[in-house]
Amino acid sequence: MTLERDPALIRFESARAASLATTRPSGAPHVVPVTFAVVDEVIYTMVDRKPKTTTALQRLDNINVNPGVSLLVDHYEEDWTALWWVRVDGHATVSSEDNDLAIARSCLQEKYSQYRDQSPGGPAIRIEITGVSSWEWTR
Amino acid sequence: MTLERDPALIRFESARAASLATTRPSGAPHVVPVTFAVVDEVIYTMVDRKPKTTTALQRLDNINVNPGVSLLVDHYEEDWTALWWVRVDGHATVSSEDNDLAIARSCLQEKYSQYRDQSPGGPAIRIEITGVSSWEWTR
Repeated sequence: MTLERDPALIRFESARAASLATTRPSGAPHVVPVTFAVVDEVIYTMVDRKPKTTTALQRLDNINVNPGVSLLVDHYEEDWTALWWVRVDGHATVSSEDNDLAIARSCLQEKYSQYRDQSPGGPAIRIEITGVSSWEWTR
Repeated sequence: MTLERDPALIRFESARAASLATTRPSGAPHVVPVTFAVVDEVIYTMVDRKPKTTTALQRLDNINVNPGVSLLVDHYEEDWTALWWVRVDGHATVSSEDNDLAIARSCLQEKYSQYRDQSPGGPAIRIEITGVSSWEWTR
């Protein structure tokens, strides 16, 4: 029912979107979908140029107060014996430094052709993996 | 880019799975996929009989300490102009009382044929909606 760490991470990395959970300064959780890429056990996600009302996003405020984050990739099918999910817990930092922006932009553009025409502006969120949990119906 | 509350809730309710974020006693976030149903602006989800290592789940411990929860329904497509998501924030309580179990089981069995053969055992999580946020590319 639990996958080994490496196969779980491979499934995680292959997913096109994840749910990023952070903790608000009030202690309540907050969850948003993100695109992401993984390089050398570090997850990168960026504030991109999809239409938003603001780039001063709640997720960034939350991480600045509480750096603990949790990301979920969930695979749903009506045949529940095919269900699986992988959760990665991590320690996040928000960065607008050129080097971090360049790495994040590069790996996101490699994974998502959509970013090749319009590169994500930033800031970048850099997440060091601290734990991997997973589940599937059988195994 | 933001949907009206009612159309957003209709999209949310129609989804087959959501990501449930809670806050651990340590303050770090935790996120798991859940099946759920909505009745009269209350969200119900239950610990079901999918294979697990334990029914003493982290999400229940978290809610008992921090009742604030956040649920995300995310619609991903490679055509990013078709993306949308709806987040519902709420106040959760864990219940093993017969009346709550019966309501939760009934609405989950109504929504998911998978639960008609093997009804979810419980406990139930009852979530009062305190806020609805949503996004889509255009509008």
